[in-house]
Amino acid sequence: MAIFRFKLLVAALIGGNALWGQNTDSLMLRKIHDEVLVNGMAHDNLRVLCKTVGARLSGSAAAQKAIVWGEKTLRAAGADSVWLEPILVPQWVRGQPEQCTWGLVGEKMGPAPVLALGGSEPTGGRIKAPVVWVKDLESLKSAAPQAFVGKIVFLAQAMDPRFIDTFNAYGTCATIRINGASIAAEKGAVALVIRSLTLAEDEHPHTGVVVYKEGAPRIPCAALATADAQALETKLQQGKNVLMTLEMTCKNLPDVPSFNVVGEIRGQQPSKGILLVGGHLDSWDVGEGAHDDGAGCVQSIEVLRTFKALGYKPQHSIRAVLFMNEENGNRGGLGYAEKARTTGLKHVAALESDRGGFAPRGFSLDASPAQRAHIQAWMPLLKPYLLHLSDPGYGGVDINPLRDGTVALMGLVPDSQRYFDFHHAATDVFEAVHPRELHLGAAAMASLIYLLDAHPFTLQ
Amino acid sequence: MAIFRFKLLVAALIGGNALWGQNTDSLMLRKIHDEVLVNGMAHDNLRVLCKTVGARLSGSAAAQKAIVWGEKTLRAAGADSVWLEPILVPQWVRGQPEQCTWGLVGEKMGPAPVLALGGSEPTGGRIKAPVVWVKDLESLKSAAPQAFVGKIVFLAQAMDPRFIDTFNAYGTCATIRINGASIAAEKGAVALVIRSLTLAEDEHPHTGVVVYKEGAPRIPCAALATADAQALETKLQQGKNVLMTLEMTCKNLPDVPSFNVVGEIRGQQPSKGILLVGGHLDSWDVGEGAHDDGAGCVQSIEVLRTFKALGYKPQHSIRAVLFMNEENGNRGGLGYAEKARTTGLKHVAALESDRGGFAPRGFSLDASPAQRAHIQAWMPLLKPYLLHLSDPGYGGVDINPLRDGTVALMGLVPDSQRYFDFHHAATDVFEAVHPRELHLGAAAMASLIYLLDAHPFTLQ
Repeated sequence: MAIFRFKLLVAALIGGNALWGQNTDSLMLRKIHDEVLVNGMAHDNLRVLCKTVGARLSGSAAAQKAIVWGEKTLRAAGADSVWLEPILVPQWVRGQPEQCTWGLVGEKMGPAPVLALGGSEPTGGRIKAPVVWVKDLESLKSAAPQAFVGKIVFLAQAMDPRFIDTFNAYGTCATIRINGASIAAEKGAVALVIRSLTLAEDEHPHTGVVVYKEGAPRIPCAALATADAQALETKLQQGKNVLMTLEMTCKNLPDVPSFNVVGEIRGQQPSKGILLVGGHLDSWDVGEGAHDDGAGCVQSIEVLRTFKALGYKPQHSIRAVLFMNEENGNRGGLGYAEKARTTGLKHVAALESDRGGFAPRGFSLDASPAQRAHIQAWMPLLKPYLLHLSDPGYGGVDINPLRDGTVALMGLVPDSQRYFDFHHAATDVFEAVHPRELHLGAAAMASLIYLLDAHPFTLQ
Repeated sequence: MAIFRFKLLVAALIGGNALWGQNTDSLMLRKIHDEVLVNGMAHDNLRVLCKTVGARLSGSAAAQKAIVWGEKTLRAAGADSVWLEPILVPQWVRGQPEQCTWGLVGEKMGPAPVLALGGSEPTGGRIKAPVVWVKDLESLKSAAPQAFVGKIVFLAQAMDPRFIDTFNAYGTCATIRINGASIAAEKGAVALVIRSLTLAEDEHPHTGVVVYKEGAPRIPCAALATADAQALETKLQQGKNVLMTLEMTCKNLPDVPSFNVVGEIRGQQPSKGILLVGGHLDSWDVGEGAHDDGAGCVQSIEVLRTFKALGYKPQHSIRAVLFMNEENGNRGGLGYAEKARTTGLKHVAALESDRGGFAPRGFSLDASPAQRAHIQAWMPLLKPYLLHLSDPGYGGVDINPLRDGTVALMGLVPDSQRYFDFHHAATDVFEAVHPRELHLGAAAMASLIYLLDAHPFTLQ
């Protein structure tokens, strides 16, 4: 695209500006966006988190460092008060880098990059076993009892590229990672290897949590990069006999103390309750937890910074909560909600950002029909910011325990196309986050929180 | 983001699928998207264009190679006929890599990466001159006559980050590059250096066309990378005396023959006229012309491939046109429209993709109110594909000469946040284009063309 002829577009924008001036809310949304786009600190804050703390799995020294970063960054953003809320978190360590090789029987074995699934048991030395190919989770479930005795099961199910929203492709496939190991174990398998949950075809394995079923043998489980999974699948589909070796020294350790980090702007009328914005501070132990979920943390902090910078004095108290342990236990979300319940703390609404720092497209609403209608009526105000989604949907893992039938749970919905390229992989680094996209997400969050503060729900 | 709880979203999707099944159009849009997302060739085609042809400025040997690629790729996509339409194009060559240094008077000069603007005159040896800082184009225009005699003018105007759509930031700033040189020349400047037109702060200069005013001296002009422009501006704002050297051997050569490449699926009722999809085949001579506009070319080809793969037999003839010379003359667009006029060829609508291969958000419509209303009525059908824009706006440079008061001109509107990071710079390479985003854009184009074919305008 070369030149000129933006007259139509620019005229539309100027026209829009003139209209916005007719309305206090429109003006405020414009001020929020101007502030974040010109003076936004979210991207700089993310750089510090990613480059000085990096990966920060619950219970690790890095997670503790992230807590200190969170406190300091919330104070620098101008929060009236900042504090830590203690919780206990599970602790899992990866140990030595995983070793995996595979090859045809009688031929040379080649190395394959794998990551143990989070929470996996170790192999206890090196496992060597024949590989059995299983197409999908349904085939695994329906296999005969004892079908895989002594075998390594390779579960080849891929995320379905036909979903437009990649979170739906993930949602319908994540059970292979979460539940696959116990199902394979019950049929005699000695280990499970899955195809990484991503739509990208590349060399990076993607980790994520496994949940062992009570009573089933706890077998080791790992994810292969998609490029390698494809190569392995091709051999197995051709009926070739494949051997695999797997060595993983990961282990589960006792729970350890940790914290959620909370920053607050005190409301002018605190009895009105709390409007919460949040993300999760922990990440998997590979990459830098940039999109997942450094982005949500720095965006939540940016909401407070923006209100302070604009001199906006909210009626409600506005809280930014950096939750700990979303990835493998949700102890932060559960602990926060439990404390809110026991202390009678009233939350009006909670907005989570945990779908990456990409260009925002709107919000998902887990709220009553009346609350949804209340919010959806603002969509024309949000259209100039290219926010168009306000459909029913999930809020977020961390805020979900706050659900009590009155609080509106909301999720920031960014563009989803690139998210699973980076999700739970070594590629989820600061450089993968675009400054403007990140900042537009923060401005979208601040806009919705402003509207909720200025025009509270009248019906629950 | 860790786990579970996508039930709501997935239920919404499955519900959606059931609804779509009630309607032929919905089913067809679903088929189009499935075909492109599963079997799409656009990304592979773009790889070949970028990696075997690369940058392809009009009149260059690479542009000729791109024409051969275009013919071959359209045939492979299944076009019923493919042909070349001859045009004459301007030819400008960059020559040796540009040399630029600057520093404070009396201190060491340091090198700065620059790119000559496309069409710039050479420096004729090395220019060495004091630098004058000018804030913006208005300040340049209002400067006294003879204000810059013997000086190199540095025009520091930056794209405004407050625009949400970055094309508006570009549109209101591009005149510094297009017109700045002649205005500076009329006030005695010996050269113009601009801040690159991008919202990114980095080390990559961005080129693009300059247009010299008749009668004004034709001075050399170049773009500095934004990081360097920022450093230079800081010194100049501090009142420091800065010297700059500039050496550029670029030159304008006589026009040479070239071609537009056209592929067509013959309509069942060709008298109904033509539905055109297109992009431009030429690019600037740096990078690989991936987003600008390899993306638009491979998406247009993908529209034909998809219809063929689905066995769809359109009523109208569907043409994919790969226009030559959008970047510095638009001879392809002008020549195509001229031929259409002189041969009485009827175009019903033309859809251009020239805003990058990013996730599509909708269409801009340069059409009559009745045509716009006709198209906008389809937006509910496009909502499942996250297409939400159908506002009045510009179609595209290449298709614009087709405007005759009856043809509807339309532009694919992708997300704009990253486009100017790559625009006209060495960074516009294949790796910057995301396969799913590119393919979703192609599917959006095919969807709109299908709807126009199945439900022609009843009013013009």
